[in-house]
Amino acid sequence: MSFDLKALEAIIAQKATASAEKSYTAQLLANGGERAAKKLGEEAVETVIAAIQGDRDELKAESADLLYHLLVVLKAHNISLEEVESVLAERTGQSGLEEKASRAE
Amino acid sequence: MSFDLKALEAIIAQKATASAEKSYTAQLLANGGERAAKKLGEEAVETVIAAIQGDRDELKAESADLLYHLLVVLKAHNISLEEVESVLAERTGQSGLEEKASRAE
Amino acid sequence: MSFDLKALEAIIAQKATASAEKSYTAQLLANGGERAAKKLGEEAVETVIAAIQGDRDELKAESADLLYHLLVVLKAHNISLEEVESVLAERTGQSGLEEKASRAE
Amino acid sequence: MSFDLKALEAIIAQKATASAEKSYTAQLLANGGERAAKKLGEEAVETVIAAIQGDRDELKAESADLLYHLLVVLKAHNISLEEVESVLAERTGQSGLEEKASRAE
Repeated sequence: MSFDLKALEAIIAQKATASAEKSYTAQLLANGGERAAKKLGEEAVETVIAAIQGDRDELKAESADLLYHLLVVLKAHNISLEEVESVLAERTGQSGLEEKASRAE
Repeated sequence: MSFDLKALEAIIAQKATASAEKSYTAQLLANGGERAAKKLGEEAVETVIAAIQGDRDELKAESADLLYHLLVVLKAHNISLEEVESVLAERTGQSGLEEKASRAE
Repeated sequence: MSFDLKALEAIIAQKATASAEKSYTAQLLANGGERAAKKLGEEAVETVIAAIQGDRDELKAESADLLYHLLVVLKAHNISLEEVESVLAERTGQSGLEEKASRAE
Repeated sequence: MSFDLKALEAIIAQKATASAEKSYTAQLLANGGERAAKKLGEEAVETVIAAIQGDRDELKAESADLLYHLLVVLKAHNISLEEVESVLAERTGQSGLEEKASRAE
């Protein structure tokens, strides 16, 4: 499949240039992305609920919403997906993701 | 860069086969991924806080944690990242991601 | 002031007997309070954001929303506010709330 | 029972004057209550999970944690429980809590 998160990131970057009246993404990005951050939190709650309920279809849909809003939050702060992947690569390569995650807890 | 979320997904799948004593990922996956879901919610809260504070370094780090725990939650329910990307592709292609997101709100 | 959380609890108990068509509270209580739990999570996100932003008026309003939805969640599971206060009293009296909270972290 | 949220509020106000080294509450209150806000979000996630799982004992315990951390967040911003109850009273009296809650959604 050719569509992936990088493709979605490009679409969001394009929508970001539209007016807030016409674009939901542009609305989320207004005021430094405050609304995007709020929606990210809400979608996370729904993802957690779907996971606990073991509802696979709902979990897929909510995870998609969560990823979309996370990319919008990152866009609001001019952070690329690649930069976040670099953080993940560093942890995996250097001292092991697990160790890092465990310590972070 | 060659490392991306799909590479992380493969690493998580490998860690999942380890014993819970040795692997943090395996611990998260125990009991149907209950602990992974809880951690996903907590990382989302920290991501939201970093976004509201406008702390870019923290936002990068918390987004990495959020993505890692999301992939573990998906693994707990045998959902691949590609399946979630398919949901995103469908929304983008068919009726527009923005419309779907707007309705879902 | 005579109005407090116990008074709100009584109002919620009364609303719970109404039909879901007429009562927002009754809607939240349907399906074992699933919607109330989701709203509780969302209001918590908004409370956290208001706290981080240091917006006192918003924090007051969101805290009110959070408390209202928490009481509805408790009602959905037939737990009284007094029962939750008993848990808090026990921790405070026996081994100190701080110790318990610290351990729970 | 004489112990209630107002009694807990008084205890928190007293702990707030202790040094951060000795008091967990004082630690939560440092930096404008940033840590208290983060913990509030985390406890909310755990409360939501307990509610969805229908685990009454866990729900009681997590609700107690949530209320404690909410009172600490309010203390960090010098907001009293009574002020939040006033907001709730206003909504209940004037136009009905349900209408307000419904509009706020």
